[in-house]
Amino acid sequence: MTEKKKTTIVLFSGDYDKAMAAYIIANGAAAYDHEVTIFHTFWGLNALRKDENIPVKKGFMEKMFGKMMPRGADKMGLSKMNFAGFGQKMIKDVIKKHNALELPQLIEMAQEQDVKLVACTMTMDLLGLKEEELMDHIEYAGVAAYLADAEDGNVNLFI
Amino acid sequence: MTEKKKTTIVLFSGDYDKAMAAYIIANGAAAYDHEVTIFHTFWGLNALRKDENIPVKKGFMEKMFGKMMPRGADKMGLSKMNFAGFGQKMIKDVIKKHNALELPQLIEMAQEQDVKLVACTMTMDLLGLKEEELMDHIEYAGVAAYLADAEDGNVNLFI
Amino acid sequence: MTEKKKTTIVLFSGDYDKAMAAYIIANGAAAYDHEVTIFHTFWGLNALRKDENIPVKKGFMEKMFGKMMPRGADKMGLSKMNFAGFGQKMIKDVIKKHNALELPQLIEMAQEQDVKLVACTMTMDLLGLKEEELMDHIEYAGVAAYLADAEDGNVNLFI
Repeated sequence: MTEKKKTTIVLFSGDYDKAMAAYIIANGAAAYDHEVTIFHTFWGLNALRKDENIPVKKGFMEKMFGKMMPRGADKMGLSKMNFAGFGQKMIKDVIKKHNALELPQLIEMAQEQDVKLVACTMTMDLLGLKEEELMDHIEYAGVAAYLADAEDGNVNLFI
Repeated sequence: MTEKKKTTIVLFSGDYDKAMAAYIIANGAAAYDHEVTIFHTFWGLNALRKDENIPVKKGFMEKMFGKMMPRGADKMGLSKMNFAGFGQKMIKDVIKKHNALELPQLIEMAQEQDVKLVACTMTMDLLGLKEEELMDHIEYAGVAAYLADAEDGNVNLFI
Repeated sequence: MTEKKKTTIVLFSGDYDKAMAAYIIANGAAAYDHEVTIFHTFWGLNALRKDENIPVKKGFMEKMFGKMMPRGADKMGLSKMNFAGFGQKMIKDVIKKHNALELPQLIEMAQEQDVKLVACTMTMDLLGLKEEELMDHIEYAGVAAYLADAEDGNVNLFI
């Protein structure tokens, strides 16, 4: 039996377009039978947020971060030419026009293809994000688990 | 016969300085006899644009993206301290002063060293970029081709 | 004797949060007995700057870059929600609250764990940074040395 190839992506960025790139590569790699992990840290955690307001107890700083950061993949802005959300609308329009997948659908497809979605517990702590605020069926881990995946990886990316 | 080492870079960014870093690493790796591929996706495609206006038929959104995005490597801005193009001018000035290579020259050298320059067809579609608008002697491919290169790669980077 | 695993990080970014991510991964990898190198290039060099003003002879452009760029890790801004330094203060506050390490401490820990910190001499030249302005006990090298480390690496990241 040959071992599966491995793709491990750190998604640090909270930009819509960068998260799209991460999930397109992840879905492609899963289709080619790689074992794929996306490790969401810092602003990349926003891609995993539920879009409703989940009432959880938080300190003042954590509440502020919670309010300032986008709730979920659909609300993330572009890394370039965002123009207060206008660029993101343009991208979504062309995605629809070309029958391509929007970010929330790319994430759904990743889950269907058993891409392992991991939330970095250390940065969740820092930004005050609680498990109840994040999507279901994801894993929680730290940098040690990331390294265990990455050190035998074929494709390692930081996005 | 030993196999060649492989360096595969995803150039996602449309920033002058990040593209410089990508091409400096690519040229270095080619000099050390690596097989090198730069896969240009999203804003990274702008590095491959011709600097003149090529008349092609486009929808409204695609025309807007076409107008808003820089035409070619020489017109890209900095990721930091761009100050409406002033930072880019500063960088170009110090590059000249130190007899270093500007981005268009780095791209030319990469082509002379047989670095494979690939344009991502899926994001070309999204942003409405046509083959006629991009440089000659480049390849066109999708995420599957990228993964085929990357999965046996020694150095894989996302820039 | 088995060879040590290798983690090699290019730190291009001058953002506080991205540098934190780089140093957290580097410290983690060092704790798992990897041979770890962080290659600081472009704005990532700022993480290595001393925080005082070191009087060195420079041209006009180099002086301007020197003044515009942050002096040392503690003064770097966030990649997102920086709000003229306010976001960075928020991050530092939550770091303290959670007894986590601030960036200067992460760098200190990396040095204690023998993470090899390298300053890219080519971009030092471009930005006009002199050895006297950077921290002690670091190495100076170019893209060739980076590639020599990276090509046998297990985890290669561009941050």
